[in-house]
Amino acid sequence: MKRVERLQKLMKDLDCILVTSPEDVHYYSGYRPLDGETAMLVILQKGARLFVTQNGFENKKASVKMTVMEKPGDFYDFIKNYKAVGFDEDHLLSRSYLKLKKQGLRLKPFSTGIKEPRAVKDQDEIGFIRKAVTATKKAFDIRISNRSEIEAAAEIDCCFRKLGVENAFESIVASGTNSSNVHHRPGKRKLGKGDLVIIDIGSKVNGYCSDMTRTFCSSSGKRERQIMEKVRNIQEQLIDLIKPGMKMSDVQKEYERLMGKHKAFHLFGHGVGLEVHESPLKDDTLKENMVITVEPGIYVKNYGGCRIEDMIIIKKGKNVKI
Amino acid sequence: MKRVERLQKLMKDLDCILVTSPEDVHYYSGYRPLDGETAMLVILQKGARLFVTQNGFENKKASVKMTVMEKPGDFYDFIKNYKAVGFDEDHLLSRSYLKLKKQGLRLKPFSTGIKEPRAVKDQDEIGFIRKAVTATKKAFDIRISNRSEIEAAAEIDCCFRKLGVENAFESIVASGTNSSNVHHRPGKRKLGKGDLVIIDIGSKVNGYCSDMTRTFCSSSGKRERQIMEKVRNIQEQLIDLIKPGMKMSDVQKEYERLMGKHKAFHLFGHGVGLEVHESPLKDDTLKENMVITVEPGIYVKNYGGCRIEDMIIIKKGKNVKI
Repeated sequence: MKRVERLQKLMKDLDCILVTSPEDVHYYSGYRPLDGETAMLVILQKGARLFVTQNGFENKKASVKMTVMEKPGDFYDFIKNYKAVGFDEDHLLSRSYLKLKKQGLRLKPFSTGIKEPRAVKDQDEIGFIRKAVTATKKAFDIRISNRSEIEAAAEIDCCFRKLGVENAFESIVASGTNSSNVHHRPGKRKLGKGDLVIIDIGSKVNGYCSDMTRTFCSSSGKRERQIMEKVRNIQEQLIDLIKPGMKMSDVQKEYERLMGKHKAFHLFGHGVGLEVHESPLKDDTLKENMVITVEPGIYVKNYGGCRIEDMIIIKKGKNVKI
Repeated sequence: MKRVERLQKLMKDLDCILVTSPEDVHYYSGYRPLDGETAMLVILQKGARLFVTQNGFENKKASVKMTVMEKPGDFYDFIKNYKAVGFDEDHLLSRSYLKLKKQGLRLKPFSTGIKEPRAVKDQDEIGFIRKAVTATKKAFDIRISNRSEIEAAAEIDCCFRKLGVENAFESIVASGTNSSNVHHRPGKRKLGKGDLVIIDIGSKVNGYCSDMTRTFCSSSGKRERQIMEKVRNIQEQLIDLIKPGMKMSDVQKEYERLMGKHKAFHLFGHGVGLEVHESPLKDDTLKENMVITVEPGIYVKNYGGCRIEDMIIIKKGKNVKI
């Protein structure tokens, strides 16, 4: 219940907070919703109440009081007794928003408050993230030469399955000119000699994600080595300068400065945990035991790109590369 | 553009329709957004306009006019010129809803209208669905005895990857008492002799999904055979009675009648296409060339369950099992 209490401290004049994203429900209630399952958690001034539906004879368990609904209306009958309700505007669909509004609730966007307690990780969480990183490192060891992008991605996904972990997101394998794109859906292009090949993958353990990128090049030329060296160099400098108390946007400015003539097509990094992209983001201030990626990338038109992405735990002393 | 025109015919007094779900954007614009990518499609009285962001040097292609945004504000600058805007209340997040509302737009929930043209499939779409079904049938042929649920699910996912198809959803392998649950996250339980084992899986080809279920039992006893026989029998009767012009809810009533003393824990079926669950649903009326699942299931507490799920194309004559 400690996590629930942290959220309750942010409630102020709200009567309750409605938590709807599966990751937040998992974090605050201990119950991890199944793929596509709707579970709604109401954080009250005292205690919390989780609403779930029964499908068959499953035995659902949570660390908060749980109500198995006979019909979806049961949740609405409960929530209508409250007036000032905080909600997650980045998850609640307009349909539900309009329905709750019609019931006379005063709805207050509260996404930042709901997500905030998740940004700093405890030892259990870091343990799961470590396992997810270990699986991802194993996948990077697979030999993928002589394969198409789609075949290479398939081998990586199979490796994850055999290790008993899930994909945190669709595996990206981008080769040659395709690697000049930040996101790329693997296609039939065969990985060739001298190609820059970006592999951006992540696994999930007990809901916790990893997100890492390596750029490979078999028989690289001078140009490929220069780009890869520059990206690695920027990453090392960023990891050294990141400190608790800095804002993500300060680090971003430094990243853009280090990139020099190259355009920064994406942010230098983002928080990772139950979601692949989560707080800290953009303007958030870094704190000890937050977990973020550091992922500089250079992309050259009609040629290719390089991105190197690792995850670090923010520390007062030297940051820890996971 | 034919698909866009069908939506334009439903516009009536709206100035434009805002299409936001990746599946709808794919359907109407020909552009399939990448995992996590935001693409917004505005259907106008004449023509349509797709807003995307550039990440690197990708060459995005669509069958409608496309604007590569410099900043997310570009979309808002465009849409603010319209007054009456239809939107997808089942996809648009409250944050975006509130932002658009603040701009003075008159927002009208229009999800049903946006989804409706997708329910009846053309020959190309049925071709992709067939491929997705073929891959799923191949996965059912894998030998999974002597494995845990999670290992069996892993083998299925690897089979999909090797066939070059994606998962349409998280594979379900539920054995023994776990099979008494409609949804189940595969765990460490080993598939045993005499266990009822429900395998509910689906693949995706060019965005089009399949969704099928088989129930296996090695060395089944009389009770297992009786349950499996009853479910198969109900499925055959349902496939025979489904006709264009019927409502989904009429079929559901018949399903519940055929189930007799057993509780119907879920609907008899649902539409499948770019989404695993899509129109026709609940009260929708069936039409020729709609594609739906027929998936009766019996679940017995502290024992196990059986579900058999196939996909059919609705026809005026005999429905076609895919």
